[in-house]
Amino acid sequence: MRQSQLFTKTRKEAPADEVAKNARLLTRAGFIYKEMAGVYSMLPLGLRTLNRINAIVRGEMTAIGAVELLMSVMQSKELWEKTNRWDDAVVDNWFKTKLKAGGEVGLGFTQEEPMTRIVQGQVSSYVDLPRLLYHIQWKYRNEERAKSGMLRGREFLMKDLYSFARTDAEHQQLYQSVADAYERIFNRLGIGNRTFKTFASGGVFSKYSHEYQCLADVGEDTIFVHPGKKIAINREVLVPEVLADLGVERSELEEHAAIEVGNIFSLGTRFSEPLGLSYTAEDGASHPVIMGSYGFGSTRMLGVLAEVFGDEKGLVWPVAVAPFMVHLVDVSGGALEKKSFADALYTDLTQAGIEVLYDDRDARAGEKFADSDLIGIPFRIIVGKQTIPEQVEVVRRTDGGTMIFNRSQLLDQATYAA
Amino acid sequence: MRQSQLFTKTRKEAPADEVAKNARLLTRAGFIYKEMAGVYSMLPLGLRTLNRINAIVRGEMTAIGAVELLMSVMQSKELWEKTNRWDDAVVDNWFKTKLKAGGEVGLGFTQEEPMTRIVQGQVSSYVDLPRLLYHIQWKYRNEERAKSGMLRGREFLMKDLYSFARTDAEHQQLYQSVADAYERIFNRLGIGNRTFKTFASGGVFSKYSHEYQCLADVGEDTIFVHPGKKIAINREVLVPEVLADLGVERSELEEHAAIEVGNIFSLGTRFSEPLGLSYTAEDGASHPVIMGSYGFGSTRMLGVLAEVFGDEKGLVWPVAVAPFMVHLVDVSGGALEKKSFADALYTDLTQAGIEVLYDDRDARAGEKFADSDLIGIPFRIIVGKQTIPEQVEVVRRTDGGTMIFNRSQLLDQATYAA
Repeated sequence: MRQSQLFTKTRKEAPADEVAKNARLLTRAGFIYKEMAGVYSMLPLGLRTLNRINAIVRGEMTAIGAVELLMSVMQSKELWEKTNRWDDAVVDNWFKTKLKAGGEVGLGFTQEEPMTRIVQGQVSSYVDLPRLLYHIQWKYRNEERAKSGMLRGREFLMKDLYSFARTDAEHQQLYQSVADAYERIFNRLGIGNRTFKTFASGGVFSKYSHEYQCLADVGEDTIFVHPGKKIAINREVLVPEVLADLGVERSELEEHAAIEVGNIFSLGTRFSEPLGLSYTAEDGASHPVIMGSYGFGSTRMLGVLAEVFGDEKGLVWPVAVAPFMVHLVDVSGGALEKKSFADALYTDLTQAGIEVLYDDRDARAGEKFADSDLIGIPFRIIVGKQTIPEQVEVVRRTDGGTMIFNRSQLLDQATYAA
Repeated sequence: MRQSQLFTKTRKEAPADEVAKNARLLTRAGFIYKEMAGVYSMLPLGLRTLNRINAIVRGEMTAIGAVELLMSVMQSKELWEKTNRWDDAVVDNWFKTKLKAGGEVGLGFTQEEPMTRIVQGQVSSYVDLPRLLYHIQWKYRNEERAKSGMLRGREFLMKDLYSFARTDAEHQQLYQSVADAYERIFNRLGIGNRTFKTFASGGVFSKYSHEYQCLADVGEDTIFVHPGKKIAINREVLVPEVLADLGVERSELEEHAAIEVGNIFSLGTRFSEPLGLSYTAEDGASHPVIMGSYGFGSTRMLGVLAEVFGDEKGLVWPVAVAPFMVHLVDVSGGALEKKSFADALYTDLTQAGIEVLYDDRDARAGEKFADSDLIGIPFRIIVGKQTIPEQVEVVRRTDGGTMIFNRSQLLDQATYAA
């Protein structure tokens, strides 16, 4: 895409009321627009990055046999009353609104209830199970405060997966397959080495649930990491019994601030019983279905990647989710021969399947480089007054390291990468 | 995809409270789930079809240089007050909800206001224009009644595009480019021959707006079509002056019921003036930006295609948007040799890039054929007890016509189609 067509510009300063690093950088670079506290619109660069995060999630969900659907935002009062989660005294972050035709509806902050009801209409026999079903939908939480940018929004995009099993053993298998998928997702997003599966409090149906916590100074959570065993424990369950369960000593654990980037939870029959989701076993007996739920925040991940990789110059995107792979920056100052070299390189790279942002604007070199640093595309190719086809310079955004290719080597590399 | 993994089943009967043909068929075939009146969840088949409709729209938007972003659902009261569209006495279909932190927010039914505000922050000079910007987002309308299934929902998915021009002439060019794109979209969706660009009432800034109306008996609108000139007029503007403008006689027009599937509208400076969106021209003078808005209902289109193509046996999807291209139906009754032929065909077609729903279930042939008719995938390949690789039968869903291929011809065709 030609940058002249991109529509957004960068900003030197972030809005004064924006305190979080992620929101300041994403706003300055033109990825997001703040509609109100906790509510952001995705500008073209932000939407592209968000779509790439979702594509990684979808790929790993498909790989474990999960099927995608898309549940509504609007939630039925009658349905949520059956599980005792409608009352504001029980769940206090609902957004609710009134129907002109009479009655109230809620805006979903999670979807266990509608998911269970949908499955109830499709599953009757043991042959219909197990199932893994997910959707990626906007969620709404009536947060009292919203100051963390994309890390905690009132409107946010989330992938939520639900598992449906016949037995506890089958549930544990599904649970483990999702845990494995989450590990692959965080590795592919480039935060695998700083993201820990932590033990958190469970509920009626299991002793523990698990969260995925990404180490970050701004994190609202505190986790205790065993560096050798790659085990981590949430503060809420840092008690002798749990330490004994996991075979670790308190003194071996390091305390870290972290951001929750995912959670996986055994639901048992918490939803299947009140909503009548049962199946008939081979012996003719009826059993409630054993469920699990598995969250991953897509817009939050956009914020996490901005927080943990952003540096003093701007955003630094992992290759896997960058809005473009290559930032082609023409600083030749309008010399016709160099301009047509840059044009041809843009065409060739694009045709090789590489997504290129081409800074074809009439602007100073310093401004273009500052913008490029701020936007954070992984590889920058500079076409300057001296550039010759035998010596195209590629600069890595992560460390500023450079590589020299001739034009045909570059296209070979590009074809290989795409 | 193996049908045993699809998760949804078909239903013999539609829910008693569902009166619209589109919702009855889409529910029975397992495309949608009704959460409440006017609010549907998309089941896997429905989501696939919806995604294909959106892909066609995105392709045509990109082709005219439009850039995609994604604006929030939640809308700021202060912003909409500036254009006098917050008050329920002015716009009576708002859904509004309260923030715990104080204040009210609305759920967007359209996005002129936030779009104009975003552009206001990015556009200052004549070099920043023209622009075409769009998003595909869930919209909310507090409808008094919602009985038309996907044709008129309280929660619905819509593509809305906005144009930003320097002059009236430039606006007209953009307007025409969108009109041309809409024509291509309706042609690709298979409804081009029954969809008319109709003259509708304009507003302060233009004499006419235009709607795209698809002929359908259940349509809530009435249009008057000139068959020879392919001109159509909405009832509201069927007056002598308009007939004279268009050079047609009342007696030449045929009256038809129709469903509005798109609308395009000149906004002039209705939003740019109150929201301060102006640009500096080459001569240094400041001018308000000339805007247009262009709607297309994605979930409504799902309903329209079900309405106009569905027959007594079920849904009939155009090739361009079908959830799968081929329905491979194994009715060989479990004969091992035929089963492995069907398995191999599934693998080969999938590897050739054809999306196949493979009915591998243990069910009677009659049930499988009825399900296949109901789901409405364009091409059915039957593997029966007698099937040999030299004689694979392909049945068209539209007219039941059959073609015989041998296996290698079939794969050649498939490779060509994919």
